[in-house]
Amino acid sequence: MDPNTILALAKRRGFFFPSFEIYGGMAGMFDYGPLGSSMKNNIEKLWRDHYVLGEGLAEIFSPIISPEEVFIASGHLSEFTDFSVQCTKCNQAYRADNLLEDVVDNPDSMSKEELHSAMTEHNIRCPSCKGELSEPESVNLMFKTMVGPLGGRDGYMRPETAQAMFFNFHLLYRFFREKLPFGIVQLGKGFRNEISPRQGITRLREFNMMEAEIFFDPDNKKWPGFEEVSSRKLRLLPDGAEEGEMSLEDAVGQGIIANEPLAYFMHVTRDILISAGLDEDKLRFRQHLKTEMAHYAADCWDCEALTGYGWLELVGIADRGCFDLQSHIDHSDAELTAFLRYPESKEVETTSVVPNLSALGPLFKGRAGVIADKLGNLSGEDIVRGVPVDVDVDGEIISIPPECFEVTTEKKTISGERIVPHVIEPSYGLDRILYTILDHNYHEVDDYVTLRLPITIAPVKFGVFPLMAKDGLDDTALSIDKKLRKKGILTYFDSSGTIGRRYARMDEAGTPFCITVDYESKEDGCVTVRDRDTKDQKRIKIDDVAGVAASLDDGSITFDKIG
Amino acid sequence: MDPNTILALAKRRGFFFPSFEIYGGMAGMFDYGPLGSSMKNNIEKLWRDHYVLGEGLAEIFSPIISPEEVFIASGHLSEFTDFSVQCTKCNQAYRADNLLEDVVDNPDSMSKEELHSAMTEHNIRCPSCKGELSEPESVNLMFKTMVGPLGGRDGYMRPETAQAMFFNFHLLYRFFREKLPFGIVQLGKGFRNEISPRQGITRLREFNMMEAEIFFDPDNKKWPGFEEVSSRKLRLLPDGAEEGEMSLEDAVGQGIIANEPLAYFMHVTRDILISAGLDEDKLRFRQHLKTEMAHYAADCWDCEALTGYGWLELVGIADRGCFDLQSHIDHSDAELTAFLRYPESKEVETTSVVPNLSALGPLFKGRAGVIADKLGNLSGEDIVRGVPVDVDVDGEIISIPPECFEVTTEKKTISGERIVPHVIEPSYGLDRILYTILDHNYHEVDDYVTLRLPITIAPVKFGVFPLMAKDGLDDTALSIDKKLRKKGILTYFDSSGTIGRRYARMDEAGTPFCITVDYESKEDGCVTVRDRDTKDQKRIKIDDVAGVAASLDDGSITFDKIG
Repeated sequence: MDPNTILALAKRRGFFFPSFEIYGGMAGMFDYGPLGSSMKNNIEKLWRDHYVLGEGLAEIFSPIISPEEVFIASGHLSEFTDFSVQCTKCNQAYRADNLLEDVVDNPDSMSKEELHSAMTEHNIRCPSCKGELSEPESVNLMFKTMVGPLGGRDGYMRPETAQAMFFNFHLLYRFFREKLPFGIVQLGKGFRNEISPRQGITRLREFNMMEAEIFFDPDNKKWPGFEEVSSRKLRLLPDGAEEGEMSLEDAVGQGIIANEPLAYFMHVTRDILISAGLDEDKLRFRQHLKTEMAHYAADCWDCEALTGYGWLELVGIADRGCFDLQSHIDHSDAELTAFLRYPESKEVETTSVVPNLSALGPLFKGRAGVIADKLGNLSGEDIVRGVPVDVDVDGEIISIPPECFEVTTEKKTISGERIVPHVIEPSYGLDRILYTILDHNYHEVDDYVTLRLPITIAPVKFGVFPLMAKDGLDDTALSIDKKLRKKGILTYFDSSGTIGRRYARMDEAGTPFCITVDYESKEDGCVTVRDRDTKDQKRIKIDDVAGVAASLDDGSITFDKIG
Repeated sequence: MDPNTILALAKRRGFFFPSFEIYGGMAGMFDYGPLGSSMKNNIEKLWRDHYVLGEGLAEIFSPIISPEEVFIASGHLSEFTDFSVQCTKCNQAYRADNLLEDVVDNPDSMSKEELHSAMTEHNIRCPSCKGELSEPESVNLMFKTMVGPLGGRDGYMRPETAQAMFFNFHLLYRFFREKLPFGIVQLGKGFRNEISPRQGITRLREFNMMEAEIFFDPDNKKWPGFEEVSSRKLRLLPDGAEEGEMSLEDAVGQGIIANEPLAYFMHVTRDILISAGLDEDKLRFRQHLKTEMAHYAADCWDCEALTGYGWLELVGIADRGCFDLQSHIDHSDAELTAFLRYPESKEVETTSVVPNLSALGPLFKGRAGVIADKLGNLSGEDIVRGVPVDVDVDGEIISIPPECFEVTTEKKTISGERIVPHVIEPSYGLDRILYTILDHNYHEVDDYVTLRLPITIAPVKFGVFPLMAKDGLDDTALSIDKKLRKKGILTYFDSSGTIGRRYARMDEAGTPFCITVDYESKEDGCVTVRDRDTKDQKRIKIDDVAGVAASLDDGSITFDKIG
């Protein structure tokens, strides 16, 4: 569907619209209006139903502003960058790779030098004034701020919600009674200070994410439930191979998808997106090329949807290995590890070096203490009994005679070992999913627009109308409206304009059903329920309507089965 | 309850904990762990049930980063400030009013000069090094950033979620078919770059808000439903009067609460907080003193709760008058007004001034056009027929002879007028509410901690345990766990440790009920359901347990009625 059609509908009906328009707008920022916010809530609920209730992952909710240390460890301070060029005449800034689209292949995976030579070769100039462009320069895309109003500490607005799930690992591991695998989710905003945002809500400076981090024993990447879905098929576009359908089992068996949990969460992703109303024929999983892989990823599959913008990445499912936990361990003193208990305890022999201070003292005087420490740090393997050993004290190599230390051997029973877990990360771009739902469900016939949203996602579930706003029809309609809302069903009460116009408005908003109270209602005690997609109408008893609505809402009946 | 007890429990069990601890922490920032996030979601749901489903308000979801223009109009750029003092010796910064607590009354409503003289009079020095302090200085508390990575536009992180509901008024008014009253809500983060944050999650730099803006015709401040609750009582502490209980009706009738909607939403607030488990005896509504009123408020009541920190403001319910809409109108070209239709159309007479160009031209040459514009802008009242009129052209007063213009009188039928609506704003601090729920529901007897959270709010609704993790008990328990989760009920499956320890862990997490599968279950097909508060246990058929759990969860039955 033409993006302009979707954007116009979105603004007209209040799904979403560019922010701050009364002040000239701000590129890359959008508001969700009443319909969009409700849809967003529904998408989040659907997602939590799968990840939190279904898979048993636990949710956390963390600050957006984070100290620099987090992004030094995560790599974002050095790696979360784009290459920009600036016009030497009009000063306008551009993403270098954007200017090379349709000129070369995959400009977004090019290095600075490659971009520069491609731009020179193809004589790329400023699109707005034809001025000469500067050389590409790497710019960091995090929003920066100062924490503490009087010259405090540098803070950055998180570019992803993931990091808090890593650096709080030890606390979360405890919540799961110290057992692997377990998983954490976070829903919330991410920020990316785009050089030149465009394409509506598909490339925002402030966007909505739903992320999960699932922690595994690297030697035992299993997720309960894989067996159950292993014969299901996904449409795969592997790196360096043909696109095609393949079962999870085969894809993992043939090494196309790296491991079971990666495949499993690709399948969960497909399920969620189909439930959200996406068109299965316009979905595929594309494996990242080696060159485009993020700095933290060992393997990554994008779930892409075909939209008016072309193939759009909606979800990335990455095997991040132990990159993040290890990196936070390296940059802090935290013990972000799991303890793996052996099936049976093992007896191991350890040797250690015990310094003999009464021999060291007279020989080395003031340096005896330092030398004792150095000796204590040696392992039994560094030592040959009866032979002097060399230690390095401030660059000086000192030979320590054998009478200055003893080697002791101990037998210990160990019940397990500490490991750094591996991580599978499904990361969902909520805004793009919402956009794609509109794109895939937009139907227009003779200028009549219907959004065929599934009821799970539809922002308003029922329109409730009195035929006329008088003669008690409005009171009856209002009381039905109230009953539905008491059941947690979001409605839209509308009492003005012709019924035809009111239906049309609801069809355009994606509302699956409308309930109309008319003059007959007074006699037969029934109301009309109308189905959006078939335009079929049925008469339902007023006393039954809240119950029927609840069943339609939770999917336990369909329209053709009622009445 | 002692805040340290609550903070320790919160961290131990994963309700919330200080953020970024592995990097030394960051004052004023907290993470919600699994229990806290679930509780936060439950509070938001309860709030939406009242405001969105119950009162029919619509939700929007807007960016956090906003351009400077928004906060010039809202007044935050000049008014969202605290007075800071800095130690001249150790450079530590403090909020001036914090240093005067327990020294003078209401230091937070003092002016810069008052603070300065109070600090001099009481010889206030640096609390950490006893150094001399600088004079109080006003500092803005918004976090600032740059939008566009290459020297873009100043952006600020919103200090409240309210502004988007104002500057998008015209779009939202349209969603409500251009009728007053209507209301909008927004849930999300607000930011305040505190000088020296303290007191756990009650004074955060990054906090969670739930705000509503309800727009009224200023001459008709009515809200449907007021009648229904007008006899209900609230505990009021009015400015300049004694604390006491009073019905909404009396409070409005006696002019203590300014108007019906203000009183109505105070009542809604009470309802929500009681449902969330707060202790009614520890709640009151305190009217703002004239001196502490925010720059935008015409009247304001705080709902305060008694906690371990003393009386804590949880919700502010303010009459913001037309301050915000008018201010955005003044700072932009937007038409943020409502059209009020008269009961009947009116005929009015309007006079207008029509310049006579053929007379102006020869007399004023090149300036004729400018003069014609000026004349056209005059109203009939500025004119005396047949008398010259003075116009100001670039500072020069020019007398225009009467033949250069005509005054025409027209009769027009007007059906209404444009007005700037007034706003009632209930603004909820989610973090403080969550904190107070823990505070009011914490019970400790002989070191045994029970959190008596209502099931609506409890982060985990049911603990599900196999007595032993073997002999099929675990499989039965897992299948019960799965059934509950399918019904949308969050559970915690726990198969290790003694049953007593597992119960204790759930009691401390506020989990209302636990389900245990034991060896008898194999024979009688029943499980034990245990009630947190009474410790009573009942046997329920395995086949019924999901249904019973759902009824306990939605409040349609209570524990004493089951079985």
